[in-house]
Amino acid sequence: MHYSQLFGKTRKNISAETESTNAKLLIRGGFIEPVAAGIFAWLPLGLRVLRKVENIVREEMVNLGAQEVLLPALHPKEAWEKTGRWKSFDVLYRLKSQSGKEFALGATHEEVITPVVKAFVQSYRDLPVKLFQIQTKFRDELRPKSGLLRGREFGMKDLYSFHRTSDELQAFLPEVTRAYLEIFERCGVSARVATASGGAFSKDHSFEFQVTTPAGEDRILLCSSCDFAENAEIAVVKLGGKCPRCGKKIREEKGIEVGNTFNLGTTFTDIFDLEYETEEGRREKAVMGCFGLGTTRLVGTIVEANYDERGIMWPKTVAPFDVHLVALVPRGGLAGKGAPRPAAQGTRPVSAQGTAGTTGRGRHEEVHAAADALYGELRRAGADVLFDDRENVSAGEKFADADLLGVPLRLVVSEKTLKADSVEWKERGSAEAKLVSRDEIIKAVEGFLRA
Amino acid sequence: MHYSQLFGKTRKNISAETESTNAKLLIRGGFIEPVAAGIFAWLPLGLRVLRKVENIVREEMVNLGAQEVLLPALHPKEAWEKTGRWKSFDVLYRLKSQSGKEFALGATHEEVITPVVKAFVQSYRDLPVKLFQIQTKFRDELRPKSGLLRGREFGMKDLYSFHRTSDELQAFLPEVTRAYLEIFERCGVSARVATASGGAFSKDHSFEFQVTTPAGEDRILLCSSCDFAENAEIAVVKLGGKCPRCGKKIREEKGIEVGNTFNLGTTFTDIFDLEYETEEGRREKAVMGCFGLGTTRLVGTIVEANYDERGIMWPKTVAPFDVHLVALVPRGGLAGKGAPRPAAQGTRPVSAQGTAGTTGRGRHEEVHAAADALYGELRRAGADVLFDDRENVSAGEKFADADLLGVPLRLVVSEKTLKADSVEWKERGSAEAKLVSRDEIIKAVEGFLRA
Repeated sequence: MHYSQLFGKTRKNISAETESTNAKLLIRGGFIEPVAAGIFAWLPLGLRVLRKVENIVREEMVNLGAQEVLLPALHPKEAWEKTGRWKSFDVLYRLKSQSGKEFALGATHEEVITPVVKAFVQSYRDLPVKLFQIQTKFRDELRPKSGLLRGREFGMKDLYSFHRTSDELQAFLPEVTRAYLEIFERCGVSARVATASGGAFSKDHSFEFQVTTPAGEDRILLCSSCDFAENAEIAVVKLGGKCPRCGKKIREEKGIEVGNTFNLGTTFTDIFDLEYETEEGRREKAVMGCFGLGTTRLVGTIVEANYDERGIMWPKTVAPFDVHLVALVPRGGLAGKGAPRPAAQGTRPVSAQGTAGTTGRGRHEEVHAAADALYGELRRAGADVLFDDRENVSAGEKFADADLLGVPLRLVVSEKTLKADSVEWKERGSAEAKLVSRDEIIKAVEGFLRA
Repeated sequence: MHYSQLFGKTRKNISAETESTNAKLLIRGGFIEPVAAGIFAWLPLGLRVLRKVENIVREEMVNLGAQEVLLPALHPKEAWEKTGRWKSFDVLYRLKSQSGKEFALGATHEEVITPVVKAFVQSYRDLPVKLFQIQTKFRDELRPKSGLLRGREFGMKDLYSFHRTSDELQAFLPEVTRAYLEIFERCGVSARVATASGGAFSKDHSFEFQVTTPAGEDRILLCSSCDFAENAEIAVVKLGGKCPRCGKKIREEKGIEVGNTFNLGTTFTDIFDLEYETEEGRREKAVMGCFGLGTTRLVGTIVEANYDERGIMWPKTVAPFDVHLVALVPRGGLAGKGAPRPAAQGTRPVSAQGTAGTTGRGRHEEVHAAADALYGELRRAGADVLFDDRENVSAGEKFADADLLGVPLRLVVSEKTLKADSVEWKERGSAEAKLVSRDEIIKAVEGFLRA
């Protein structure tokens, strides 16, 4: 992708209302655009990240033996009245058709999935059923905040499982936990499991997957040694107290809840009469679990866990592009436009040295042709490349943009690198820039992407 | 995919309210499940089809130079009041937050995309902009009907383009038309372009892409010779009259509108003040086009255009699977269960001949092992295979299900085919079943999929 053609450029000034790091960086980078409080448009760069996160989630759900479905956002009022949540679910959006029929906007999908599954389950042979979707959820938050962390409209993967027995569900829970931890690790964040309240879903405790970061809304009490953790809302341990598991000291951190698991028992299958015939011919209610994972929130969390003072540092697995290729053409040969801004803080790039003051159409075209050729080779090697081909933008501005956008590997082609028959190589997480020989660059990039 | 494991089986009895062919076949086949009038859940089989359609649409949009975004469904009331459509858009769902803030549910996205684009367009260099999304739309239809053809919640690809001049937009229109016709052809339906009203979008005429079928809601007056066509709502020609283009006779057909193009001029860019600086330094409003294509409606249309009395006949490009592999195991060796239903109408399959009355565990396992092996080989050859591995289901029932599900190629492994060291081959669109030698079957399938 040529950056000059990309819709959604970097911006220096964004609304002063934007407080959270994830929103600031994602809006400045042109990943997302606010439409209203807690409501965002996903621009091309941001959508690339979201799709990568969704695909990781999808792969792990399929590995778990779950099948993908897509449920509607408009839910008949009757289903939510049956469960009592039409009134009790505090963030439910409700609306009325011109025909008078009322709907809830899907805030969660137990009220829809349970009758759908009932239509296909008769016998124990039809169970277990494990269905997931990646779909938009709507919640009437009084105070949407923290960018992608708490919105009115957001993406979620929700998995629902239906089992013969409570034991069967209990045996499935650690499988989901493993899949979730795998998802978070693949997305470059480290989550831990905390006990929490069942909320609007269950009287039992639930389990939350918490990424500890100062940006989190939840207070987590966790052991400084073992993996014991509780949401402070329900915690029986105290800050500074002893871990009930290993006796070490309890500390407190803030956390972002990126996933949860609820054992719903037969609450919903009782209400919707989801019965099956056991092997012995008895009629029993299926036992249900539900497992949420906020996909858009996870994108926000990845940013909160991977940034520095210059911008985002995407993990390779979810980066919008693999390589950010910068062509540094000599300025002055063309009409200058747009004030150059100061170079990014930090190491002075090798490629910027010695280019100041040079001009000339010939060298300009030489750099462009070399960058074009490299762009083509990288793409043929299977790399997704963002190619900053802009004219009349200073080296400093291009480097600052690259740092803000956070693509894992930056390559620079300039007069300087051409002279050395090489390409400048800088990884986003490293302060060091180095020259890699032109002959070896493709192999080096392939190695970097595989690593 | 093993059919025994698939969520969403075929059903003989569905609600008597279901009148349209597409809904009947898709619900009976387990592709979709009704949740409320005009609102469906997409089950795994149906979602596979929808994703294939979406990917074809996505590819053609990218070929057109458009970039993908994802806009929200919750739209601030203020934007819709600005355009006057908060009141005038007759099928708009409106809702109120507990904070008192009002939203429209996205029925179309001019009110959202125009301000988003404005944030990134300053100069003529930033134009044209071509953005599309594949997203859920909500319309408060008084009488949702015809299955996937007119729903309250449905999938749509909407493309919005912003141009420097009206000429630039005019030059883009035939490119979109070509892309649309390519999409419909790839999806196995034949669409023609009809002039129609601008509706809630424009005072000018629009263009509709109409698939003519008796299931259509629109009346189309079209030339029996050339490609002239008009929606009857605005037609100046009359049934039986002369074509203004070629003089031949005008006939009437019913049509399903699967896409449309609107020249919005500067209606929305005036309202949202989407200005740019021309090369000469003047301030001008961008000129806007919008281009809809109903993705879920297209799935319904594909069914309406591709079925027979036994079920759906998916075009290869959008079929949920490439191959429907049936293992016909001798019955009786195992406890029978479930009454066999009569064989599908039509040709008696080669593989069913001579198997009646045979029993025995050994032969049963032999057939299963052979089918398993073929399943593995087909998958390694890159085919998506639905493997009907069910026990205690009659040949007739398996064939009837295969016909209903409509996968393009049915392969059967049975005692009979094993004896002949071959596999039974039947294409969904053909009445002929034939035996293909086991040695040649993979090559034959590869050839079929490439064709």
